[in-house]
Amino acid sequence: MDFNQLQNQLNLSFNQIDLLKQAFMHTSYVNEHRDQNLEDNERLEFLGDAVLELAVSQYLYREYKNMSEGELTKFRANIVCEPSLEQFAKELELYDYLLLGKGEEKSGGRERPSLLADAFEALIGAIYLDQGFDSVIQFLKEFIFPKIEPGAFSHAMDYKTQLQEKVQQQGEQVMYEIVDEIGPAHNRKFIAKVFVGENEKGEGQGRTKKEAEQEAAQKALKLFD
Amino acid sequence: MDFNQLQNQLNLSFNQIDLLKQAFMHTSYVNEHRDQNLEDNERLEFLGDAVLELAVSQYLYREYKNMSEGELTKFRANIVCEPSLEQFAKELELYDYLLLGKGEEKSGGRERPSLLADAFEALIGAIYLDQGFDSVIQFLKEFIFPKIEPGAFSHAMDYKTQLQEKVQQQGEQVMYEIVDEIGPAHNRKFIAKVFVGENEKGEGQGRTKKEAEQEAAQKALKLFD
Repeated sequence: MDFNQLQNQLNLSFNQIDLLKQAFMHTSYVNEHRDQNLEDNERLEFLGDAVLELAVSQYLYREYKNMSEGELTKFRANIVCEPSLEQFAKELELYDYLLLGKGEEKSGGRERPSLLADAFEALIGAIYLDQGFDSVIQFLKEFIFPKIEPGAFSHAMDYKTQLQEKVQQQGEQVMYEIVDEIGPAHNRKFIAKVFVGENEKGEGQGRTKKEAEQEAAQKALKLFD
Repeated sequence: MDFNQLQNQLNLSFNQIDLLKQAFMHTSYVNEHRDQNLEDNERLEFLGDAVLELAVSQYLYREYKNMSEGELTKFRANIVCEPSLEQFAKELELYDYLLLGKGEEKSGGRERPSLLADAFEALIGAIYLDQGFDSVIQFLKEFIFPKIEPGAFSHAMDYKTQLQEKVQQQGEQVMYEIVDEIGPAHNRKFIAKVFVGENEKGEGQGRTKKEAEQEAAQKALKLFD
């Protein structure tokens, strides 16, 4: 693996190149090279996860001044989650640099979503340790933040669409009904129910009718798992 | 509320004292003072949560070099969780500064664990915005980090003790059994089962026998909810 090439590709310049390498070191590789006294990427991933969480939180806090805490939390969860991190890792072509043991390689570890997501978080952890938080922000500004907009990470967020698709496969219809509004006018909450055919499948609440319907759809989706 | 007194108490000096005040502003207070164009503490709490998560992660990463990622994650979850945050908030006497609406005050909001925990996170968010990450670390070093040691936050961690207590109330006995060991010697995993009386109540795995038993106990505890 040519980690200098990776540095060029990612516009990074590490002081401790071993930290960059460690970010890609799967535990299966370490187990096969026990004489070399290596450390796998799991602790870096632990740290990187928190670094990423703060970097994304700060970005959303500043960019979306009208979003409520609840909306921000959902938005963040849709960015810092395995499917998104896997997507980032793929776009950065990180799979080329994963250091895997032979068994892991053979069983397709290089394409495994969790390994790619973990390596992305570990990479963030490595940049943080080597260069500090501002460099992480710089890196994210270049490669990740431009991709962030509401809806871009809808794989987990848009429960209504997901439910619609599942139900259509069964030849049924989805219907929503706002069954109640609670609280004073300036702090109104809506209660929504979702029906598949004639059967109630879930109830949700939210500050807008749409939020309430989304939550109801989310609950209904759990019945399909 | 005398927020200058709070600043002295917490050894802080805000540039924007309104940010400090906002950290204590419950949504019920904002709703009762709509003419004043105030903002509640919920968005600050969103940000503060992530700031605290990183600060604690970094502290644990550096202090506990021999802990695995799994152990670090559990440890962090036991520090950044409502019961711990409530405890921190109480020790700092934050309850005196909560700004609540009349209804919330009357119904005991000032003692509500979630309100105290939220205010603590919002306070961290306010320090971060006003003074930056290093000041947050300084604040935590003075008031919080000295309290952090494995076991100090055992309220959520020690599932075996919790299970023991519940089961004793019913006049029954808890028993653990290591039923399997998997993986190569250098990466061994243990599988534990827990029995209450003669009935199996849960199974867990871990890198040590104790970890496996803890996980089994955690699963068994869910049956009591």
